[in-house]
Amino acid sequence: MKIFANNKHLKSWIEVEKDSDFPIQNIPFGIIFNKELSPRVASRIGDFAIDILQLFKLGYLDDLAFTAKDFDTSYLNNMMRFGKIGTRKLRDRIAVLFDESNLVLQSNKSHLNQILIPIPDVENLLPVEIGDYTDFYSSIEHATNVGTMFRDPNNALLPNWKHIPVGYHGRSSSIVVSGTPLHRPKGQQKPKADEGPVFGPCKMLDFELEMAFITYEGKPLGDSISTKEADDYIFGMVLFNDWSARDIQSWEYVPLGPFLAKNFGSSVSAWVVTLDALENYRISGPNQEPKVFSYLEYEGDKNIDIKLEVLIQPENKEASTICKSNYKYMYWNQNQQLAHHTINGCNIHAGDMYASGTISGPTEDSYGSMLELSWKGTKTLKLKSGDERKFIEDNDTVIMKGYCENNGIRIGFGEVSGKILPAK
Amino acid sequence: MKIFANNKHLKSWIEVEKDSDFPIQNIPFGIIFNKELSPRVASRIGDFAIDILQLFKLGYLDDLAFTAKDFDTSYLNNMMRFGKIGTRKLRDRIAVLFDESNLVLQSNKSHLNQILIPIPDVENLLPVEIGDYTDFYSSIEHATNVGTMFRDPNNALLPNWKHIPVGYHGRSSSIVVSGTPLHRPKGQQKPKADEGPVFGPCKMLDFELEMAFITYEGKPLGDSISTKEADDYIFGMVLFNDWSARDIQSWEYVPLGPFLAKNFGSSVSAWVVTLDALENYRISGPNQEPKVFSYLEYEGDKNIDIKLEVLIQPENKEASTICKSNYKYMYWNQNQQLAHHTINGCNIHAGDMYASGTISGPTEDSYGSMLELSWKGTKTLKLKSGDERKFIEDNDTVIMKGYCENNGIRIGFGEVSGKILPAK
Repeated sequence: MKIFANNKHLKSWIEVEKDSDFPIQNIPFGIIFNKELSPRVASRIGDFAIDILQLFKLGYLDDLAFTAKDFDTSYLNNMMRFGKIGTRKLRDRIAVLFDESNLVLQSNKSHLNQILIPIPDVENLLPVEIGDYTDFYSSIEHATNVGTMFRDPNNALLPNWKHIPVGYHGRSSSIVVSGTPLHRPKGQQKPKADEGPVFGPCKMLDFELEMAFITYEGKPLGDSISTKEADDYIFGMVLFNDWSARDIQSWEYVPLGPFLAKNFGSSVSAWVVTLDALENYRISGPNQEPKVFSYLEYEGDKNIDIKLEVLIQPENKEASTICKSNYKYMYWNQNQQLAHHTINGCNIHAGDMYASGTISGPTEDSYGSMLELSWKGTKTLKLKSGDERKFIEDNDTVIMKGYCENNGIRIGFGEVSGKILPAK
Repeated sequence: MKIFANNKHLKSWIEVEKDSDFPIQNIPFGIIFNKELSPRVASRIGDFAIDILQLFKLGYLDDLAFTAKDFDTSYLNNMMRFGKIGTRKLRDRIAVLFDESNLVLQSNKSHLNQILIPIPDVENLLPVEIGDYTDFYSSIEHATNVGTMFRDPNNALLPNWKHIPVGYHGRSSSIVVSGTPLHRPKGQQKPKADEGPVFGPCKMLDFELEMAFITYEGKPLGDSISTKEADDYIFGMVLFNDWSARDIQSWEYVPLGPFLAKNFGSSVSAWVVTLDALENYRISGPNQEPKVFSYLEYEGDKNIDIKLEVLIQPENKEASTICKSNYKYMYWNQNQQLAHHTINGCNIHAGDMYASGTISGPTEDSYGSMLELSWKGTKTLKLKSGDERKFIEDNDTVIMKGYCENNGIRIGFGEVSGKILPAK
């Protein structure tokens, strides 16, 4: 199916700088508010937010199926009830309205004043109400690095890893939008093998560079979603920082997995980039050997070429890029993740979030966590500011960025940033 | 603080049979509906549901803080926004209205016709909208049995077990109310150590006998709830069947914990028994040695004496009791669980659910799972129907019951039942 908004010949009459993540071909969705505006559904072109509630009130969406309630809300979930076709029509409509060939809105200054708001004048909320949050572990480079560090370099991958897109359930209540500071967590750690555990602030605080996809409403409990159907159930994607307390994790995680090491907070970018907008950046994934079970087989290119970057910014100092990676490295793609997640009949809801697991690449400068970059604290990262880091220190801000680019069109996610405040 | 509804001298003018779980001292909360009634908040005395929305409309709750929206809804979450004091006042009011000494409602036949509905004439919905669901692993008997079977009988407990109320996040979307059938899950298993994994319907389907508590809205992200404060944040409890696919679990769970082995479904009882109603059944917990960290220390009796029972009913046959256990056996109490869950700043919401982990007792007939009762399938359970079981078979119904009893007052949970249908 042709998606109008993806047409590379579109050009908005809103000025979009060359390296902007938000040309007219992106049209992401998010929630904005400010002192005058109650929270509402919005999109973005260049450095302007587009107030979709206002677009609706002014009649520009009259022939679509939406009602005011779908946009006059703190979450995208209502709007997502019309599924992929519904949000695709909305995205296409916005592309029509903001393309330079269309004079209707462009020439109506009164309407423009009501619809366009400069990005610095709005704040974002978490875009979706997250029912359930799942975290996968799907980068073979990351899993190999962790296995090499903590188990056996010669058998770094556990026996199930190439058969199963390993995943676990995480905490949805503590997922926050970019810009929300988090306190360093306290917890039990066991720093010395021959001594008992200690309690205090985490000393090995880490980020994990991840992407997350967000689903539409799924099928009833008991049914499964195939790899072929998965794209129809995926609304869009965000950057995801899966903050991790390594010392808490290593003491607590046996045998039921990470808990307090993760659930003190995760950070996501504010604008949900639709899967539709990412279609032109599909790329083939790695060869999967041994052969996967038939419910995990898929056709076509299901990886996505998203260039990723992580920066650390010590307080009031220059930020340094410490990692460049790419979502294309994923061993398991999201179609396989969703098919696996539902093969046992597990149901999914609109707004549910599924993070990829740390996205590490093949080279040392592409590792997506301090654990790997500092190789378990045995190496020191030198920052441009002159500071050195093995893990994240108080008042550091971690910033992740991501974008796709080809044929002169760049579709990006903006950033997810989060500052770590001292433990309470 | 004195809780009026707990007074043992109360007696309802509604007839309550001697072995009923629902005397006037219980007054649980749930959601009812039928062909004529939209979903609404209700309580129960004996074999009658009390339509609380109707009580509100008829003016019996006028001086309380609630609005119609708190009861005209599919979930208890709205009603819970007034916290422990709010729900305590409501429970006390219902006790006043239904005590035999009070003639006001008792003598108003027209009102009674609108308020009381025989239990067989209503159906229940899941009582709360669950934001996040956590499962603990807090029975020392269960953890010891599992460690003995799968690891080392001489070191059955992992090193962290007596320091941490071990827990992990589970799936909230697939939690269903008692009576909802579930399909046997499909998934990967690895039945033979020297061969590769296979795919198909689970062959080692199990239940886990658990209790779950439900919280009120908590503190902001970053704050903690102490063991002393925990009772104020706990609304009530339900019976919880944490269905488990043992063969899927043993292949998938390393290193991030159970996933598809659990998230195909969990079943809860329909009536939330308030923590207030359980106060008279508090009992001291086991001695905790080694000494716990100070954030896990607590004062007073925090375990609860809840007699538990599990029955298996093969299709169209007699049910057999296969386990009798008790919630009092828990090594870690729920105050400790909640304090641990939030010590890192993790936030909690109204409606969040926290299951105990399998509640096994010290004797072989008190083990809370087929895994333990059949000792990993090495023993066969003989049922009264003449059938034999090592795990749960298709069309079996598993029923769990629980109640407290002392001073002639019995406060119970009714039951949680679930039938396993063949794999789809």
